[in-house]
Amino acid sequence: MTTTEIRSKVKTGNKKFMDAFGGKDAAALAKLYTKGGQLLPPASDVVAGRDAIQAFWQGALDMGLAQVKLETFEVEGHRDTAIEVGRYTLLTAGGQVADAGKYVVVWKTEGRSWKLHRDIWNSSQPGPAK
Amino acid sequence: MTTTEIRSKVKTGNKKFMDAFGGKDAAALAKLYTKGGQLLPPASDVVAGRDAIQAFWQGALDMGLAQVKLETFEVEGHRDTAIEVGRYTLLTAGGQVADAGKYVVVWKTEGRSWKLHRDIWNSSQPGPAK
Repeated sequence: MTTTEIRSKVKTGNKKFMDAFGGKDAAALAKLYTKGGQLLPPASDVVAGRDAIQAFWQGALDMGLAQVKLETFEVEGHRDTAIEVGRYTLLTAGGQVADAGKYVVVWKTEGRSWKLHRDIWNSSQPGPAK
Repeated sequence: MTTTEIRSKVKTGNKKFMDAFGGKDAAALAKLYTKGGQLLPPASDVVAGRDAIQAFWQGALDMGLAQVKLETFEVEGHRDTAIEVGRYTLLTAGGQVADAGKYVVVWKTEGRSWKLHRDIWNSSQPGPAK
């Protein structure tokens, strides 16, 4: 698979992520991760596995986050693996920016799909040095 | 290069990182990054290039951070690239934990060395949801 093809798979994956988030569907979000997927969220230990990932995103949706915007800076493909660096913006139902920051996602093929395997991010907004 | 060999290169790189940090040598830290290296630190925009990386680490050292401990969870090698997931602990001169969290580093070969190319982390300590 060429870099262009992998880039397109990541774009498709991010579209699904944004749609599931906008649809407040934590179960659909969890299914976008590999079976051994892990979140590495700020102010939290590692969140491992789809059940825990679903619970994490449910919590975020319950906090009133309504939409996420993902913008890819770069994608690097290595056969069944892709490294993506990008920027996220989290919006409230009123369309206000709740948070904005950057992320690194390691994508893996699982079956015919490209899925999120490692997902780490942090806020770019000023705050306590955490 | 086998996964075991790449793992060993990352270990060596982390040892150099810990030594430079403990020696309060921001210039040495910056040299452990590729020329196009980027930090993605919490509460900050992307920090790109060695000069900016050196200034960032100088700031951290000036804040009184005396030591960093890096523990690798996993390393995945792809030719000239490695993806490392790990845990960091930042210590003050008095040996107290200033912060602890997790990181993802994308390593690249540059010349004969393996260098940090993308470096993102966040705290695992409870705090504002940033």
